[in-house]
Amino acid sequence: MTLSVAIEMAGVAVFAVSGALAAGRKSLDLLGVVVIAMVTATGGGTLRDLMLDRTVFWIARPEFIIVTGIAALLTIPYVRFARPPERFLMVADALGLALFSVAGARIALGTGQGALIAVVMGTITGAFGGVLRDVLCNEIPMILRKGHIYATASIAGCSLLVILLGLGVSGGVAAAAGMATVAVMRFGSIAFNLTLPVFNLPGPKDPEA
Amino acid sequence: MTLSVAIEMAGVAVFAVSGALAAGRKSLDLLGVVVIAMVTATGGGTLRDLMLDRTVFWIARPEFIIVTGIAALLTIPYVRFARPPERFLMVADALGLALFSVAGARIALGTGQGALIAVVMGTITGAFGGVLRDVLCNEIPMILRKGHIYATASIAGCSLLVILLGLGVSGGVAAAAGMATVAVMRFGSIAFNLTLPVFNLPGPKDPEA
Amino acid sequence: MTLSVAIEMAGVAVFAVSGALAAGRKSLDLLGVVVIAMVTATGGGTLRDLMLDRTVFWIARPEFIIVTGIAALLTIPYVRFARPPERFLMVADALGLALFSVAGARIALGTGQGALIAVVMGTITGAFGGVLRDVLCNEIPMILRKGHIYATASIAGCSLLVILLGLGVSGGVAAAAGMATVAVMRFGSIAFNLTLPVFNLPGPKDPEA
Repeated sequence: MTLSVAIEMAGVAVFAVSGALAAGRKSLDLLGVVVIAMVTATGGGTLRDLMLDRTVFWIARPEFIIVTGIAALLTIPYVRFARPPERFLMVADALGLALFSVAGARIALGTGQGALIAVVMGTITGAFGGVLRDVLCNEIPMILRKGHIYATASIAGCSLLVILLGLGVSGGVAAAAGMATVAVMRFGSIAFNLTLPVFNLPGPKDPEA
Repeated sequence: MTLSVAIEMAGVAVFAVSGALAAGRKSLDLLGVVVIAMVTATGGGTLRDLMLDRTVFWIARPEFIIVTGIAALLTIPYVRFARPPERFLMVADALGLALFSVAGARIALGTGQGALIAVVMGTITGAFGGVLRDVLCNEIPMILRKGHIYATASIAGCSLLVILLGLGVSGGVAAAAGMATVAVMRFGSIAFNLTLPVFNLPGPKDPEA
Repeated sequence: MTLSVAIEMAGVAVFAVSGALAAGRKSLDLLGVVVIAMVTATGGGTLRDLMLDRTVFWIARPEFIIVTGIAALLTIPYVRFARPPERFLMVADALGLALFSVAGARIALGTGQGALIAVVMGTITGAFGGVLRDVLCNEIPMILRKGHIYATASIAGCSLLVILLGLGVSGGVAAAAGMATVAVMRFGSIAFNLTLPVFNLPGPKDPEA
């Protein structure tokens, strides 16, 4: 439990930074940036907790809101002075995805759910905050577009976690392996520009020649 | 109860196909198509269950997720080989609407809610998945636009169901009548291009001459 | 409790009018206008109740749905005959924000939550319906854009409410002071065009000269 909370606290901070950076590209005001950061950081876990009928994690521990707010506010002056490297946003986001996916799957297992629901909940916890961020910023969610290996990495990491736990591996080792899988797949797909195949329905504009 | 599950299972499969076809128009990747299909198929029932404080239906029965995934994956190769008729998407969607609306209203009644909440829940179950699909695809939801008879059909079918049950008609007959009403209204509005009146607020560009 | 219900009933009606007016700018059909009005009026309270694990307020009291529907339907013919003053939408929205923010914070306190969660819930209750309205209308939510003092007013009013209650001030006086704070800040920001600072991340197009 303490491990889960620590993982989730780190994930919240990292996602809040990622959300604040993303919001900064949209000419939002100060509060808008903080709101987007909070939604990015807490959206996935909130939906997971509503679905699993748990107390929403940041209502149970309001420290999460404080951490998110501080992370967002610290991000704002930072980018005033130093321009973050182009890929800093993606790296912060990948770490948040790894932390949240594993935390979400562990929480689902802890409430007695089976392997399939644990993987779904891990993926929702990891990816849904970013979906909300993109919807609020009026963009098609990044995870759905152009073959980004994103939710795929979350699914793979959560699946490995569930399999290792099923084989009797200790919780800490399984969590570390799951997080490493998510992060490596995400970094690898950025570094080597790997994508999933894109699916196109032949539309009316298709010449069919 | 078994009837509700059977209706909902059919609705999930049909909506997953509809969602996959809609996603295919957006150049999403393989996983994006599956995600949109799942959201379209499960979004309405998930919101209904959260609001009624029930266990989310696909957490109670993870088979729903498997059915959705299979339906989405089968849709992808199909449209590679055969171009679906222009209206196939609308027909699949209309059947899903009919099945889900009635299932949602029956579930609300089963939890002890009255007629008004049953109609609202039926409409949410039927229409909200498509709303989420359109929001994720960054479009104004189809059900709100240009006078489509969509949620209207759902409201009419759910209302008939509630009235027939109140008159003592058996559950199966009332469900069939409600579904037929939704489907006939939806097909009729497509076939005859029927619409609701459009409401326009005179805007700043209004010449007022 | 009766005070909360009365406040929330007034807020629902006012937000429904605001939602119907906003929807009128989007060429939606009759039902689309009613749906947007209902979502604007009930979205914030619904999310609050789901998060606090309460019975959703309009399921507990279906009168709320009837009030919303009537308010939306009355708005439609009205704007056919009389063009509402340019700022009528903003005034209705500001009143709804004041009523809902205080009602939401009071409800959170009533379920035993602390001051921070009460402020968050008040802000969500007041502002989330409008966020949903803007997302459905495919716009970046107004509360996030261009320095509108909107959620800020809600946060200030809820904070004052919590502080006054902590100092032993009676519930009615604290509620009135909180609502007045929200309304005055909102009206003041409209009248004097006050904004929060806008946060811009230096982007690729930034000349950096």
